[in-house]
Amino acid sequence: MAVPEKAATRPGGRRRPGPARRPRPGEDRLRETTVRWLADRGVSLEDIGNIVLEIQAPFYDSLTLNECVESVNRVIDKREVQHAVITGIALDILAEQGKLPEPLQGTIIRDDSLFGIDEVLALSITNVYGSIGLTNFGYLDKVKLGVIARLNGRGPHCHTFLDDLVAGIAAAAAARIAHTRGHD
Amino acid sequence: MAVPEKAATRPGGRRRPGPARRPRPGEDRLRETTVRWLADRGVSLEDIGNIVLEIQAPFYDSLTLNECVESVNRVIDKREVQHAVITGIALDILAEQGKLPEPLQGTIIRDDSLFGIDEVLALSITNVYGSIGLTNFGYLDKVKLGVIARLNGRGPHCHTFLDDLVAGIAAAAAARIAHTRGHD
Amino acid sequence: MAVPEKAATRPGGRRRPGPARRPRPGEDRLRETTVRWLADRGVSLEDIGNIVLEIQAPFYDSLTLNECVESVNRVIDKREVQHAVITGIALDILAEQGKLPEPLQGTIIRDDSLFGIDEVLALSITNVYGSIGLTNFGYLDKVKLGVIARLNGRGPHCHTFLDDLVAGIAAAAAARIAHTRGHD
Amino acid sequence: MAVPEKAATRPGGRRRPGPARRPRPGEDRLRETTVRWLADRGVSLEDIGNIVLEIQAPFYDSLTLNECVESVNRVIDKREVQHAVITGIALDILAEQGKLPEPLQGTIIRDDSLFGIDEVLALSITNVYGSIGLTNFGYLDKVKLGVIARLNGRGPHCHTFLDDLVAGIAAAAAARIAHTRGHD
Repeated sequence: MAVPEKAATRPGGRRRPGPARRPRPGEDRLRETTVRWLADRGVSLEDIGNIVLEIQAPFYDSLTLNECVESVNRVIDKREVQHAVITGIALDILAEQGKLPEPLQGTIIRDDSLFGIDEVLALSITNVYGSIGLTNFGYLDKVKLGVIARLNGRGPHCHTFLDDLVAGIAAAAAARIAHTRGHD
Repeated sequence: MAVPEKAATRPGGRRRPGPARRPRPGEDRLRETTVRWLADRGVSLEDIGNIVLEIQAPFYDSLTLNECVESVNRVIDKREVQHAVITGIALDILAEQGKLPEPLQGTIIRDDSLFGIDEVLALSITNVYGSIGLTNFGYLDKVKLGVIARLNGRGPHCHTFLDDLVAGIAAAAAARIAHTRGHD
Repeated sequence: MAVPEKAATRPGGRRRPGPARRPRPGEDRLRETTVRWLADRGVSLEDIGNIVLEIQAPFYDSLTLNECVESVNRVIDKREVQHAVITGIALDILAEQGKLPEPLQGTIIRDDSLFGIDEVLALSITNVYGSIGLTNFGYLDKVKLGVIARLNGRGPHCHTFLDDLVAGIAAAAAARIAHTRGHD
Repeated sequence: MAVPEKAATRPGGRRRPGPARRPRPGEDRLRETTVRWLADRGVSLEDIGNIVLEIQAPFYDSLTLNECVESVNRVIDKREVQHAVITGIALDILAEQGKLPEPLQGTIIRDDSLFGIDEVLALSITNVYGSIGLTNFGYLDKVKLGVIARLNGRGPHCHTFLDDLVAGIAAAAAARIAHTRGHD
């Protein structure tokens, strides 16, 4: 797979506080790989932030793209999210390369409407900020705002998982903003 | 609570086959109570069937309201669904009557946007026909088609749970149609 | 319900960082109410911490009760968790007082084995630290360690929801320790 | 992958009734593939039935292995279950063959305790018969009854997903028995 590993260089690291918290080798690498794989598949964190801004702006006057991208970053900090993204994109890429066993290969390449494992992975992302993200996940998955539409009107690429993953991340980031801001 | 119990008179019963399957006392009553409580709160199975028809008609030319209502009936057959509906409506009614302890009373009466337990119950409904219903659930919860809109533009009633429950039932019934019809 | 509200006095407050983060009126109160309701129903955070210690000690030599209770505190910080606990305990208390409509009243009082809404609420708690808590939740719900057994061998009280909620909190706190400590 | 496709020859087919129900090409093949992949990885439906019998026998005196295997068969009938099994086993096999991109390859081969995607897939299986299966899923995943233990004490094979999938199927089949038999 054309996704080379290189040493993680991300400065700063995670912000979760607590006494037992220390960055560990491999951890930042997983986060960095997640961001890089998204970028390699055509999705920047700003793309996702723009979706968050579009769905949350009606509720928060002062909301900025910056705050939305920051929220996307906090979602991507979560290991559960990293694992879901990596697994889903790997399946997309393997399908693209024709390397999955049948009938899984055909199911994923065709984005079979009865295949729900992409939604299952996305839900595990949305859940990290609780169930209030569910509504936005479903809505985004249906109306396909921003980069999600671009992924769906795809050319040579298979984005069966990626569009749901992006909707899941955006929905979680929107839920995080709601939880953080509360009732402004 | 003004929801009187009477003996279940539903003829016919469940259609799930299998050797160990027999109707049991109390079972039909739970189903019947579920349908009656929905009706008492202003929601008929046909109302829900109409939502299903609206979201699935674009995909299946020959789909009729009849088939949609039949699908809603199969969803309502599931005990998990019955329990979720009964629990949610009971909470709505108790909130309406001011009988819940604070702060739960205020949270439910206001339909607090950070309260996600209504979505949690609805998800347990949607899941009975698998994850492909997730998208429609979220979409319905956001755009509020048909009877769901009516519930939201409420007068004296509290429908914090009910609108999500209805969206969950409709999404499950739509998923069931997709699974049953497959790739027409 | 004999659960009086008083002004929250919890010092320190939440530790989640981020620019938009400010404590809000009502927020600390919801957290404080959650802890108080658990205590009123016979469950201290230390009780839950002891369960966490029992299931995680085999994996982490240096794990202390202190760290486990701290982890329980972080789980209780989450609004999704607070809402699930408050909703579940309210249903237990209303059932105890005979104030729920039938058939829900009987279902909850008997802790009907086919009623899964208690598990549904507990799952929404466990999910806040991702799916790795699922295994411990199910295990705890089956073997009923520590305070969970005490709740089950109940006297006059109805703890249909509470035992699952406690298992869910303990499982989430254990998952949080695993995520925080990583591969020690 | 050494899992050859051949035309499905399964006689009889699904038993779900209803007017719109017709077997479709490809559908029986997916079911048949699911059963064959499980067998190729060392798991028969009787193996899973034995687990179901072990956890449910204490509750139902007359329960037979036959009824348990029948219940496993009904769980395997569900397309959501088939997709989860096929996806999980494909990932196990690809990991075994070293064909996944890093860091996913290493994560799955090591059965990293912080990787929860196997639980996420298994949960989507357990959910098809509602949330009452959650407890048994977690319990089975922890104590590893029957064939699950054998999968875990593995030789050359990678069963990171398979052990959870089997626990998920067994838990769903047990939940189905509970729902079908009710309060015997």
